[in-house]
Amino acid sequence: MTKASQRLFGFLAGRRGPWIIQGNMAVIGEALPAAERLLIVDYACELAEADCTWHLEGVTSHDRYVTRDEKNALLAQQPPLGRLSADCAAFIAVRKSSAWWALTQDERRNIIEDQSQHIALGMRYLPAIARRLHHCRDLQTAQPFDFLTWFEFAITDIPAFDQLLKILRASIEWQFVEREIDLRLVRARDV
Amino acid sequence: MTKASQRLFGFLAGRRGPWIIQGNMAVIGEALPAAERLLIVDYACELAEADCTWHLEGVTSHDRYVTRDEKNALLAQQPPLGRLSADCAAFIAVRKSSAWWALTQDERRNIIEDQSQHIALGMRYLPAIARRLHHCRDLQTAQPFDFLTWFEFAITDIPAFDQLLKILRASIEWQFVEREIDLRLVRARDV
Repeated sequence: MTKASQRLFGFLAGRRGPWIIQGNMAVIGEALPAAERLLIVDYACELAEADCTWHLEGVTSHDRYVTRDEKNALLAQQPPLGRLSADCAAFIAVRKSSAWWALTQDERRNIIEDQSQHIALGMRYLPAIARRLHHCRDLQTAQPFDFLTWFEFAITDIPAFDQLLKILRASIEWQFVEREIDLRLVRARDV
Repeated sequence: MTKASQRLFGFLAGRRGPWIIQGNMAVIGEALPAAERLLIVDYACELAEADCTWHLEGVTSHDRYVTRDEKNALLAQQPPLGRLSADCAAFIAVRKSSAWWALTQDERRNIIEDQSQHIALGMRYLPAIARRLHHCRDLQTAQPFDFLTWFEFAITDIPAFDQLLKILRASIEWQFVEREIDLRLVRARDV
């Protein structure tokens, strides 16, 4: 029963990996230590932690907020990760407050979409921005973040991505964010 | 980062523990091996697994389906675990199908409540039945179940509890259950 979940991903910052870390900003709260590169591993988190500057984990999971109509619209436009044209990436780690987690589903949905248009906003940036969301609040080991989101896009889409973040960070939903890290990366040419 | 989550609980079946296992029924799918006793541990799952017949884990988490009105009604009536009058317990482990997890939030809520009245039904058995729900689908290690639910009640409430299960198992929601274990327990007098 100690086999890793097939939906578990590890983000290992250190000296290895195909992504060069170019920016490491603490948007809200405590920063993450600086590192040169990021390695993303599929369900294999026994990788030498001693060798890492930091190591975060999360699982992909079922949809928590989107409705069927929204999901169908997303599925029609969502690009995959790994596109050759997507040389840039962002890794956004977020922890929300206990006040957020004490809300009920209808209250959280109301804030996320009715008040903050999080889903509709994200949709406007498709298919430019590829995205994979990982949940870490409910893992067996205590985690510093609730969500890890990995984004990939072309260098020409950086302004659009920055604009999306700017709108989200000004939203009602973001008033419940108590820690946020924004890492920017580019694909290394040597791997 | 290897500290256990404070919301993690372990269920260890073997020869130790304050709960005597009197019934172990596979309602749907594969059975769990027989054992004498059950021990429930708070976020401390390094306990010798070799000493256990089986060992399951889950985390308590935020509400996934209840609305604010439903939550307030539940909070007003939900009893705590550990009541002296509650000498009986049940441990229900459930895995739902991939078809269930492919549904969106509005679709799952529609099945759980509009079609199956899961929340309203449970409410009718309060405050007789105390309950704690644990999630295990999104843990780091692969798990055989999605949910573990622990129930405590008085011996006189066994018929009511059985009736609740009978109604739930006949619901539309249960058509998505692909494995279910129903363990019945009584509090040991020797601990």
